[in-house]
Amino acid sequence: MDAERLVLRLNARYAHCIDDGRLEEWPDFFTPDARYSVTTMDNYRDSLEAGIIYADSRDMLRDRVSALRQANIFERHVYRHIFGMPLIAPMPEDDEMREITSETPFLVVRIMRDGASDIFATGRYLDRFHRDAQTVLIRERIVVCDSARIDTLLALPL
Amino acid sequence: MDAERLVLRLNARYAHCIDDGRLEEWPDFFTPDARYSVTTMDNYRDSLEAGIIYADSRDMLRDRVSALRQANIFERHVYRHIFGMPLIAPMPEDDEMREITSETPFLVVRIMRDGASDIFATGRYLDRFHRDAQTVLIRERIVVCDSARIDTLLALPL
Amino acid sequence: MDAERLVLRLNARYAHCIDDGRLEEWPDFFTPDARYSVTTMDNYRDSLEAGIIYADSRDMLRDRVSALRQANIFERHVYRHIFGMPLIAPMPEDDEMREITSETPFLVVRIMRDGASDIFATGRYLDRFHRDAQTVLIRERIVVCDSARIDTLLALPL
Repeated sequence: MDAERLVLRLNARYAHCIDDGRLEEWPDFFTPDARYSVTTMDNYRDSLEAGIIYADSRDMLRDRVSALRQANIFERHVYRHIFGMPLIAPMPEDDEMREITSETPFLVVRIMRDGASDIFATGRYLDRFHRDAQTVLIRERIVVCDSARIDTLLALPL
Repeated sequence: MDAERLVLRLNARYAHCIDDGRLEEWPDFFTPDARYSVTTMDNYRDSLEAGIIYADSRDMLRDRVSALRQANIFERHVYRHIFGMPLIAPMPEDDEMREITSETPFLVVRIMRDGASDIFATGRYLDRFHRDAQTVLIRERIVVCDSARIDTLLALPL
Repeated sequence: MDAERLVLRLNARYAHCIDDGRLEEWPDFFTPDARYSVTTMDNYRDSLEAGIIYADSRDMLRDRVSALRQANIFERHVYRHIFGMPLIAPMPEDDEMREITSETPFLVVRIMRDGASDIFATGRYLDRFHRDAQTVLIRERIVVCDSARIDTLLALPL
């Protein structure tokens, strides 16, 4: 299967997992040594490491989910992710190829329990994927938000 | 053609039909015995049948369109549907296969005649499609809205 | 590559260019004699030529970018384009085919520098593309906005 479709499908399952509230399964999209961060466009442009969220292992992502569950923030709202087409970085046509690099725009709507919906975040994923014969996993996902103002309620994964 | 692309294309035409205001053509996307319902995430989770809209035949959909036209609600606003990638349920690779089951996230923006735009609804379609050599039709579409608060103006098909 | 995928990819790069702020590269998506216009659904339906923006050459698009840069409007906000699936007009399966006609729904979110995000525009692209062995270029793009009220700040390309 071509890289574009692999990324499209992974992202579709990724969104489905989060938007369905199955947060415990979310870390399974990542490699054990994965880096995951959420930052703003300004910080990213200035190469500031200090993002909003930073994790450098899948275990840290699991810890984050546990914290979210204890804080019980998740019950108060749900998310709906909509993705654009991924832009796949050119790579040699080589069956041994193990890595896919891509960029995907996103839009996340937040639906509060009282029913109001608003645009929670827009931006892009800067991704590196590890693929083998059976699976594709995220090795690095840098979530670059367009807005400098991210709600401090930021709790659910982007 | 693979199931994913069939669903992508059907949904693209479905959105185009509604957003273009060609409501009389909308029932043609369904089989004669199709079920179509609109419900909320809470109701769906609790298996409550009482949704916002329920129809169990294509003729009921035609009746609904007639009622909408008479109420003249459609003139007051337009919709814009944006869909995510469908998640296709696994199925045997079998040319005789007649059914596709999938789930597709959606976002609908409503544009009022005075020009204001807002997020009207987000959610997902839970679909069963009937395919034959020439066509793909919707046999069942359950529209599960994320928000418990759906505007009572809900008139146009989702 | 099939027409659908060509259009999906061109639009992905098109969005990426604008949303990244690389406006100087935006005219490169067009043929030298391209027509580009932005209009409203009402004007389009009534066949009124008087749109919000009109250009009938790539050079006019370059002029427009220069004007935008001088006005320095771009610094005040960023955009995020999300596209739906293109609907490709039927055409003969013919390798010599040089033209693709399609329609693509879009949603554009505007993110102001203070952090607020809103739906800036929705609508559809009515496109004609010129393809040759190496490239696909836009020969005509009519941007039909759903809303009759387009912010007069309209500055960035849609």
